[in-house]
Amino acid sequence: MFYAKIISSGLYSPEKIMTNEEFERLTGMKIEPHYSEVLGINHRHISDEKETPAFMAAEAAKRALENAGMKPEDLDLIILGTDTPEAISPPTAPKVQYLIGANKKEVPVFDVNASCANGALLIDIAAKYIASGDYENVMVIGTYAMTKFLSWKYPWEALFSDGAGALILSKSDKPGYIGGVMRADGSWWNNWGIYMGTGKMNIEGIERGLHKLDLRAPYPATVNEEGWPMMIERFLQKYRITKEEIGMIFFTQVRKKSIINVMEKLELPLEKTHMIMEKYGYTGSACVYMAYHDAYENNMLKNLEGKVILFMTSGVGYQQVVSGFRF
Amino acid sequence: MFYAKIISSGLYSPEKIMTNEEFERLTGMKIEPHYSEVLGINHRHISDEKETPAFMAAEAAKRALENAGMKPEDLDLIILGTDTPEAISPPTAPKVQYLIGANKKEVPVFDVNASCANGALLIDIAAKYIASGDYENVMVIGTYAMTKFLSWKYPWEALFSDGAGALILSKSDKPGYIGGVMRADGSWWNNWGIYMGTGKMNIEGIERGLHKLDLRAPYPATVNEEGWPMMIERFLQKYRITKEEIGMIFFTQVRKKSIINVMEKLELPLEKTHMIMEKYGYTGSACVYMAYHDAYENNMLKNLEGKVILFMTSGVGYQQVVSGFRF
Repeated sequence: MFYAKIISSGLYSPEKIMTNEEFERLTGMKIEPHYSEVLGINHRHISDEKETPAFMAAEAAKRALENAGMKPEDLDLIILGTDTPEAISPPTAPKVQYLIGANKKEVPVFDVNASCANGALLIDIAAKYIASGDYENVMVIGTYAMTKFLSWKYPWEALFSDGAGALILSKSDKPGYIGGVMRADGSWWNNWGIYMGTGKMNIEGIERGLHKLDLRAPYPATVNEEGWPMMIERFLQKYRITKEEIGMIFFTQVRKKSIINVMEKLELPLEKTHMIMEKYGYTGSACVYMAYHDAYENNMLKNLEGKVILFMTSGVGYQQVVSGFRF
Repeated sequence: MFYAKIISSGLYSPEKIMTNEEFERLTGMKIEPHYSEVLGINHRHISDEKETPAFMAAEAAKRALENAGMKPEDLDLIILGTDTPEAISPPTAPKVQYLIGANKKEVPVFDVNASCANGALLIDIAAKYIASGDYENVMVIGTYAMTKFLSWKYPWEALFSDGAGALILSKSDKPGYIGGVMRADGSWWNNWGIYMGTGKMNIEGIERGLHKLDLRAPYPATVNEEGWPMMIERFLQKYRITKEEIGMIFFTQVRKKSIINVMEKLELPLEKTHMIMEKYGYTGSACVYMAYHDAYENNMLKNLEGKVILFMTSGVGYQQVVSGFRF
């Protein structure tokens, strides 16, 4: 049995910022003080033309490699998660592979899409590849350029920010990766998304606004506030882990108040989670890797040896995934 | 150690057909006798408005369930592969989960995109989930609606057809799934694709034709004709399997002549492969599952017990994956 360990991380966040005040001026919509107080979001990072999903992913990947002292050819697999892809086809991952110079060794790559639930899911897939024994170093990357799909006319669009995060998972004979728990309910498929797909990518689709992110029916806050504690309880039960063993939980960085409520429900202190929305906004598929990297950089993962680290992610569709490591 | 076995399959092919003659009439381009003789393609199946990627996937999935005598709630995971997605976000898989009624049990789902290399890759991922011990029955689905991305003005567009294929893999304590070998080279990313993605989904993108499949620089036939035998040799070497143990190879159904050349290079008789492009056209992510189902239906998989069955798939980006079972 081989276990996966996180050995490195990296992130990329576009330089350009739009504050809440600027958002209000641009859209003529009032979002404050709700956005800073309830969602924890003060500003968003806006990718420019050069900062495509593949570009940002490659930058985060290069930094994770650098932090690990590794070369692109040391990677055995790259898994990229996004629901803001560079193109319909090919997938985004091979472009990133080329941008970081991993194409010379023909490093295998593929894209995964479970929308913003990607963070925990990619780890689960990567760990299973490592468990098979054939893969030494697997990189997972989440990249998010949702501001490019915004109409800038609804207050809820203030949620979104761009960025990318990457982790390198490596084979270890000591635990290591524990496992994952998932659930999904496709009856929510029509609620929120970018509905321009096969058969709709035409002028008529654009006239209908399908090329923009569309909130048709909001998800209730309970989807996460009840779903997350339930999923974490399931995880603890499945792998016979006590709440006391939890060292840190990285949640989808979607709503500060929800994370606080969930930690309360779990009867865990707020020190056992880390929030980055105040710094980076909400970055979808990238956010839990960015949160991990930020926690690591701020020495928050010291003294957690032997503790359990969880990634709890949610995405439209909808899908929820929790996965975790013995640190 | 748990192994995966294929226990069932199903396919869906749209009723509407366009013959080579009709293609020539529509486009004013001559494709014959090249298409029927070299590519093995006489006609293509054209999905109608109702036959979206999710719809076709759900139909193939229902048939695979029916053939297995299983209910949707018997599935523990659904992995869907496509590069013609229903939408940008959410992924296609949760919609399919809902359409087949697997949402009631909240069956986990996610999309994978390694373009037309999806067939062998999804099997590899599914088998790793089964190997972990937590997943009993995993469905893999490939769906393809590429005709909806065609301009109907280039002769190479005659290649494409629509359809979906599904397999159910189940846990077994006897081998079973053997493993997979992959490679990718993202320096080919710009050659062939549907380049409308993040930042380009707008009127300007449509004016530039990015919403249509675009062949910018053809792949040489050698990519498959040299790549496939090399990948199969690597597989045999890695898992210490002799050529004589091969019972059947399902290749990406892209070019009849290439498959014949590859079987010659491998010194294997043509009976050890199965081609369906004459019946169904080229159906990308769906084609190897459709070929498997067709071979099964035609009793071609009888008497292969103990033999090795391979799936060898290629896709733009590019990516190549071979995976195999002890049957």
